[in-house]
Amino acid sequence: MMDLFFKPRSVAVIGASGTPGKLGYIIVKNIADSDFAGAVYPVNPKSDEILGYKVYRSVTEVPGEVDLVVTVLPTPKITVDAVEECAKKGVKAIIIESAGFAEVGAEGKVFQDQIVEIAKNNHIRVMGPNCSGIVSREIVTSIYPMTKKVPRGNVVLIGQSGLLAAGMTADIIENESLNISKVCSIGNKCDVNENDLLEYFGNDDDIDVISMYLETITDGEKLTRIAKKVAAKKAVIFLSGGRTEAGARAAMSHTGSIASNARIVEAAVKQTGMIMADDFNELKDFAKVFSTQPLPKGNRIEVITLAGSVGVVVSDLCANHGLVLPKLTAETTEKLKDMFETPINNPVDLYFSVTKIGFTKTLETTFPDAFRDANIDAAILILAGFEYTEEAVQKKIIQKIVQDVGKPVVVCMIVGYNKYKNVILNELGKDLPVFTTLISGVKALSKLCEYGMRKHKQSV
Amino acid sequence: MMDLFFKPRSVAVIGASGTPGKLGYIIVKNIADSDFAGAVYPVNPKSDEILGYKVYRSVTEVPGEVDLVVTVLPTPKITVDAVEECAKKGVKAIIIESAGFAEVGAEGKVFQDQIVEIAKNNHIRVMGPNCSGIVSREIVTSIYPMTKKVPRGNVVLIGQSGLLAAGMTADIIENESLNISKVCSIGNKCDVNENDLLEYFGNDDDIDVISMYLETITDGEKLTRIAKKVAAKKAVIFLSGGRTEAGARAAMSHTGSIASNARIVEAAVKQTGMIMADDFNELKDFAKVFSTQPLPKGNRIEVITLAGSVGVVVSDLCANHGLVLPKLTAETTEKLKDMFETPINNPVDLYFSVTKIGFTKTLETTFPDAFRDANIDAAILILAGFEYTEEAVQKKIIQKIVQDVGKPVVVCMIVGYNKYKNVILNELGKDLPVFTTLISGVKALSKLCEYGMRKHKQSV
Repeated sequence: MMDLFFKPRSVAVIGASGTPGKLGYIIVKNIADSDFAGAVYPVNPKSDEILGYKVYRSVTEVPGEVDLVVTVLPTPKITVDAVEECAKKGVKAIIIESAGFAEVGAEGKVFQDQIVEIAKNNHIRVMGPNCSGIVSREIVTSIYPMTKKVPRGNVVLIGQSGLLAAGMTADIIENESLNISKVCSIGNKCDVNENDLLEYFGNDDDIDVISMYLETITDGEKLTRIAKKVAAKKAVIFLSGGRTEAGARAAMSHTGSIASNARIVEAAVKQTGMIMADDFNELKDFAKVFSTQPLPKGNRIEVITLAGSVGVVVSDLCANHGLVLPKLTAETTEKLKDMFETPINNPVDLYFSVTKIGFTKTLETTFPDAFRDANIDAAILILAGFEYTEEAVQKKIIQKIVQDVGKPVVVCMIVGYNKYKNVILNELGKDLPVFTTLISGVKALSKLCEYGMRKHKQSV
Repeated sequence: MMDLFFKPRSVAVIGASGTPGKLGYIIVKNIADSDFAGAVYPVNPKSDEILGYKVYRSVTEVPGEVDLVVTVLPTPKITVDAVEECAKKGVKAIIIESAGFAEVGAEGKVFQDQIVEIAKNNHIRVMGPNCSGIVSREIVTSIYPMTKKVPRGNVVLIGQSGLLAAGMTADIIENESLNISKVCSIGNKCDVNENDLLEYFGNDDDIDVISMYLETITDGEKLTRIAKKVAAKKAVIFLSGGRTEAGARAAMSHTGSIASNARIVEAAVKQTGMIMADDFNELKDFAKVFSTQPLPKGNRIEVITLAGSVGVVVSDLCANHGLVLPKLTAETTEKLKDMFETPINNPVDLYFSVTKIGFTKTLETTFPDAFRDANIDAAILILAGFEYTEEAVQKKIIQKIVQDVGKPVVVCMIVGYNKYKNVILNELGKDLPVFTTLISGVKALSKLCEYGMRKHKQSV
């Protein structure tokens, strides 16, 4: 059923427009520019052709079958009429993008209820209203102009917010390294909700990570049940809006619904094994870590740095985020004794090795030797934006070693010359999660370890 | 006395070199490229001229007075000899950049102690060893190549770390919006320490904010006494490395000193009114906020957004950081009643106003009207990277309004098209603190409010 939304064979846009800039135009343009290979049917009583597609006066006049309908109409009233037409036509999946429904109060709620009623009677699934629908390589129903094709990734983002869906769309199409392949904006959730999508993407083998922003929870019991099942298979990252009294008040005025309070949400998250995010960047950042790094079995971290002070601060941050910095084994200490002034410590300050055998050689030998240590589950690698760092990244030295060692890594790239920093961020960022603050890198790794330890405990 | 370091009339570089790439060359080149207008005396027994400057065999051979000496010599032994020569010459300020002293253990400590002895007997102040000295518009003693002149700002960064000093140097010269005018790397602190600098910059009217990274505290009682006095006049932002057991262990191996524990540091910070930072970015981020924004009298925040969901999450974050979102006054509600569907709320969702009077008009009227509300001390403004946002920034609309209203603002710029995001960050970032995550913006504002409320309480 949900395949009708994400893999439709044909799509009709009710409210399509031939005027560039209009929402009904952007949607058709976005579909045209996507990889969508099926039939496209713009619906508009006053046009004949839009972007080369034949236009129909009503969805009922479309000759073939219509898997998916997208509506973008000026009033709730005529949206209800359009849903009626869809029912007549036998459409089973509709995305309603227009606003003016439950989110504006009782008056809009009446129209939304009518839509739910028609949908129920005709076994139609409805996404929205007040949403931006789907952005993926296969189909784009968003009202925000796409500048490129959606990258291929293994992350899906689900959000209950319009402008956010816009911003996220812009982000993913421009930042390939985010690993996001689908954004789903579900708006008022009059029918299709987080539970439907969690279940659907839980069973989608192309999706490894689900990042989700919710302001309201449609059915907490069901969410807990489904999330538990899904989170056992793949990472589910959850940003819950309205957890505090101030946030709940804001949510009330945003969506008109009563948000769940912090304790309930946190308990549910703990019970299900979802990963809790605290802002929108974390939805993307954590997803990047989970979608590119193997799971560690424990929380024993090696900090690898070229500056002692940064090692000190990362150690403090690790301690405050539940991560442990163990001593390295006697084997490693013995093996690397010539590379350090004193026996190797954790944090591993590569500076001594660099003065002895140079930067590249240090990366190629000292770094992996230290990282392979049996006491270590994962590493935080601190880089600075200098010429030699850029060189190592361009030559893929770091990427190759991390892959060889096979343990998870987060990179923190905190200071240096912009010229080098930007290249490193963009280049290394394709393969590894790169953070621009120590706090964000440590926090993301702590989440990966938390999840990895949970899964490891379940499997033994 | 400290003026000899920061405003010398003449400087000698012992260990100067004519070979590009060598540290002794970079230092002379950096001084030559700075605004330093005094005499420069390279000292090297084997050269005649370096970068156009006449070279002296020994500092004792320099004809005029020498205010400041910078040494960059290959061994601790000959560094001690150089300090002896300086004493003979009557030099009163020396920056020792070379490593190999107390930080490598007992052997190096012997040489460091000899230097301290000579300095004491001759009333010489010594900065370092194992440091990078000073980076400012007036004088640069750093061993890291400068690509531009140091920008003019009202922030000084003090750090106990070599590579960090390098990275910070690179950062400030490339990112003018950081507002940093001086970086001071004090290394092993054998003589000049944080207390000297705090006192010095506390009395420097050109410096409004002092950001400081310390791994060890030379004299806690004295620091508390001085910091209390300085923090009453200007913001002192403090990152304390080695606060946790793991961090202290790392600090031990980095500088060989026992770091202070979390509770002691936190108590001292609280007592003095310093602002606590948790990583290096916060040293810069908080400084940006404190150096550009007026102090609020309270913690009553208005959240201004175009996306309801972002308002919800910021509300949660505010609540978790001790910030309050009050209702707006009846006056504001009445004045703006035509701009919103329902009475104006906090967060202020400008979306409704935008649909009625457009984006620019909303920024010019609804935004300031709401921000002037008597219940409000400061605002968090959420922007997204879209064309209309860029336009408003280029036309200086936001900057002008913030200045007119006269209350502190932090901007969070979280999603959107890179093209617009980057322009907004760079352009708006010149005048206002712009953050790329909600968490970092909220945290920085919470620090400003904490400090503002403390000062307000003291003044009433």
